[in-house]
Amino acid sequence: MLLPLRLALAQFNPTVGDVEGNAAKAVGWIERARDEGAGLVVLPELCIPGYPAEDLYLKAHFIDANREAVEEVARSADGIVALVGFAEPAEAADDRRAYNALAVLADGRLQSTYRKIRLPNYAVFDEQRYFVPGSDAAVLKVDGTQIGLTICEDCWVEGPPASLEVEQGATLIVNPSGSPYHRGKGREREIMFRDRARAYGVHFAFCNMVGGQDELIFDGQSVVIGPDGRLLARARQFEEELLVCDIPPGGRSQTAPVAEALPDLGEVYGALVLGLRDYVIKNGFRHVGVAVSGGIDSALVAMVAADAIGADHVSCVVMPSPHSSDETQGDARAIARNLGTELLEIPIAPMMDGYEVALDSIATGAANDAATETAGDMPRDPARPSEPDIAAENIQARIRGNLMMALSNKHGWLVLTTGNKSEMSVGYATLYGDMAGGFAVIKDVPKTLVYELVRHRNERAGTELVPTSVIERAPSAELRPGQLDSDSLPAYEILDAILAGYVERDEGSEELARAGLPADEVDRVIGMVDRSEYKRRQAPPGIRITPKAFGRDRRLPITNRFGG
Amino acid sequence: MLLPLRLALAQFNPTVGDVEGNAAKAVGWIERARDEGAGLVVLPELCIPGYPAEDLYLKAHFIDANREAVEEVARSADGIVALVGFAEPAEAADDRRAYNALAVLADGRLQSTYRKIRLPNYAVFDEQRYFVPGSDAAVLKVDGTQIGLTICEDCWVEGPPASLEVEQGATLIVNPSGSPYHRGKGREREIMFRDRARAYGVHFAFCNMVGGQDELIFDGQSVVIGPDGRLLARARQFEEELLVCDIPPGGRSQTAPVAEALPDLGEVYGALVLGLRDYVIKNGFRHVGVAVSGGIDSALVAMVAADAIGADHVSCVVMPSPHSSDETQGDARAIARNLGTELLEIPIAPMMDGYEVALDSIATGAANDAATETAGDMPRDPARPSEPDIAAENIQARIRGNLMMALSNKHGWLVLTTGNKSEMSVGYATLYGDMAGGFAVIKDVPKTLVYELVRHRNERAGTELVPTSVIERAPSAELRPGQLDSDSLPAYEILDAILAGYVERDEGSEELARAGLPADEVDRVIGMVDRSEYKRRQAPPGIRITPKAFGRDRRLPITNRFGG
Repeated sequence: MLLPLRLALAQFNPTVGDVEGNAAKAVGWIERARDEGAGLVVLPELCIPGYPAEDLYLKAHFIDANREAVEEVARSADGIVALVGFAEPAEAADDRRAYNALAVLADGRLQSTYRKIRLPNYAVFDEQRYFVPGSDAAVLKVDGTQIGLTICEDCWVEGPPASLEVEQGATLIVNPSGSPYHRGKGREREIMFRDRARAYGVHFAFCNMVGGQDELIFDGQSVVIGPDGRLLARARQFEEELLVCDIPPGGRSQTAPVAEALPDLGEVYGALVLGLRDYVIKNGFRHVGVAVSGGIDSALVAMVAADAIGADHVSCVVMPSPHSSDETQGDARAIARNLGTELLEIPIAPMMDGYEVALDSIATGAANDAATETAGDMPRDPARPSEPDIAAENIQARIRGNLMMALSNKHGWLVLTTGNKSEMSVGYATLYGDMAGGFAVIKDVPKTLVYELVRHRNERAGTELVPTSVIERAPSAELRPGQLDSDSLPAYEILDAILAGYVERDEGSEELARAGLPADEVDRVIGMVDRSEYKRRQAPPGIRITPKAFGRDRRLPITNRFGG
Repeated sequence: MLLPLRLALAQFNPTVGDVEGNAAKAVGWIERARDEGAGLVVLPELCIPGYPAEDLYLKAHFIDANREAVEEVARSADGIVALVGFAEPAEAADDRRAYNALAVLADGRLQSTYRKIRLPNYAVFDEQRYFVPGSDAAVLKVDGTQIGLTICEDCWVEGPPASLEVEQGATLIVNPSGSPYHRGKGREREIMFRDRARAYGVHFAFCNMVGGQDELIFDGQSVVIGPDGRLLARARQFEEELLVCDIPPGGRSQTAPVAEALPDLGEVYGALVLGLRDYVIKNGFRHVGVAVSGGIDSALVAMVAADAIGADHVSCVVMPSPHSSDETQGDARAIARNLGTELLEIPIAPMMDGYEVALDSIATGAANDAATETAGDMPRDPARPSEPDIAAENIQARIRGNLMMALSNKHGWLVLTTGNKSEMSVGYATLYGDMAGGFAVIKDVPKTLVYELVRHRNERAGTELVPTSVIERAPSAELRPGQLDSDSLPAYEILDAILAGYVERDEGSEELARAGLPADEVDRVIGMVDRSEYKRRQAPPGIRITPKAFGRDRRLPITNRFGG
């Protein structure tokens, strides 16, 4: 009887551009896999250059550096076969310089490569900008097992190369990937691989990258699926892990670990924690600052920050104005206290006075009372454009933004912004005010989900980290007396339903109205979303958790007269 | 003898998303061409939906609307054949919904379509994200002349479809385009078409879009080239025009107009004027504000603004601090006076005091004196990170930013920012300060070119619109006593040479040093460029005039450890 192949999937966390560091990490994982007795170790897609490295892939000296690094890694592949993702130099007639490739390393040398055939160019993907497509299926024999090679997208459509490789005798298809997370993506992938495994009657092994890269999270959760579609092994989400699995399993082989998948809210929360931690660490920060208002959004951001890098590395800053209520200020202090972060307080009234005097003193004949319909600066409330009140409201937000940035300058903090996806969608935020900062932790989290995540984290803590009063109070920007979000926006349940259709599914107003959403609110919301595009263009990056985030995922012009 | 074909090229200015407006304009140009006796009129690529409409092309209801609009336009094509660019609905296995197509309109109906075969997906182009490629060459007979159809990129590579169409008897290749401008692009295009015309021995007619769309300028300059490579007709740059040309020319035919190409600096200046004017008008603004410092950058922006929308629609705002010299303030006032714009003055010292008191009053134990190397907030001078002085300098810039935005809120202005490409490259600017605004007119203009453009415009005016003292004074941000740009940056001649290599040609440090640039400055500049990526990501859009602009053209990750 044939001995099984011991397969190791090294889901590790590379850093874009850190070619030497990634290569050193790769060597470490290869050695660990050999120590575990593996005959084959699979590393993620493009793990040497990092992914997505965007226009770095167009630089000749970057491609050279990554090729040299792979040759260095090859030396460690002795007594084991390693499949390592890199950008293989290519000749092309245009500015593309590489294949998205897999290096087959064995006997201390680079033996051959497999080149990704299907290059995704939709959603967050731009691979046809960077890579020359491969054309050839590849089967590799390791310890008597025939292994078909693919990379990520190659498996997301039925047919070649996997189908050809199975015809050529492969009984295991490996699929190293850089597959970005959205809510529930792990389950989607497992269903897809189960279908493929059953269709071809072979094993599938998916090795995903883990880590945060700007707006994207790679969630790990590598899996091995048997020919009958059964899940044989699963690595944890959001953490590095070497997943070892004998194929076929049984006989004297070890039982492979099957990590339990996180429940829905725990998964989203985990993605936010990883995304923030990696942005902080990979960009060389050690401390973050959050303007905490006593509202639910900044509460969630402070919570995630404390979980991501430790409360000692988080400063909460409370900046009351004359419109701030005692209740919200008390809650803001309670949140910092409960989380164990530093708390700083800076009243902004004296600065508000300074601007008021300065602006009242000038008269301009160039007033343009007609509404600024789009672009430029935005009214916090798009229903009341160009009213003088708007200027006064925005100035408060901008004083706070300036103070946060001054603290950042003095102390080297990364400033976190606190806008959620519902607000970012309709432009209910002040550019250079509450939008000022380096990273927008919850910019892809709809308001209704913000509430769920705070409740979830409170429950996990078994205590009110965020006081119930924060969860139950009607949302307000507190920029004028008695202001409520509901003065300007539909109820968040309705707003989020409209946004899910318009932003995430590209549905138009007629379709949304047919689905039962109130037609007047649909039109109002679509108008606000379209008019806020200029503002989102100047927003900091943030973590993608939905199937369509603002940023590299949804790319709309600012100048755009299409309505609906 | 065969009568010549009277060909009309309608280089007009559509607006992205304004499907009905664009269709109405198209009808107007078709009617004008018929009035001129043309048998064939060519309109630009994708002129009905607008170009580039980005993810609008992924919306089913947008594609439907543009198809309906083309059917409306068809009714006007009676007694003339019209070729009109639109997004033709397509069935695809993914989220793409359309071909980049040309509608052949005749006898009041849509007769057939040609589908673009070569879809560019590099530089500013993402057409493989949006369109299904066509596969078939197409030849059309109009008034006895066989005409081969192509769209833009189809002609930029030798071979099909044009080569096949010539084999099939075409003696004229038409090439409706949305070909974006960079400095000298018109000449590149004419050389390319001359080569093609000679290679195939046929006429080429290039009909380009005109107008600004966010960061891109379409410069018009449509041309007709004879089989011998001779230029037979040329439309003006940056303006709408109906270019009429008989093919073959001679006999009783009219002489076609050959517009003189603008000289180099006049061309760049013209691109800036068109780009700003279209951003203002297409986004519904009527007035702009510019913070004028007395320096050369804001002087150029104010000049361009006055030329683009008229001095009556421009407000210059002077905001002196205690570090502002009398000389620069005097120059700032002179610039506004010479241009004829409104002048407003707001001293910022009172607000500076407010922030100083507020920030001095708080002590934080969370100081992180280690430098913030990248992302987050930026030191104006990357060589002096996290010094307290930096906070004070940035606050001045941010007070000015807040005041400009307050004026925008009060009066509906679009605020123009004044940073040039050299500064944007190295991050020598304050995020939310001088970077605050809706449109960055000169963000792709290197500092050395800023000087040339100001001199050029002064010469054209025959008077010192911008005083010589502004041109001759050593550049300074005036945020601390005696500050000069040269304290922080290499001389601009050296800086711009390094940036041309690193940013525009993707060269690495070794290559730049080999080209004779000082190695230490090269490394320093590359480090500054890389560390400023987060800041550029939050910059307003601006006009692309070089072959590689920041924005949709150069796409680099923020989190990036590759050096050089």
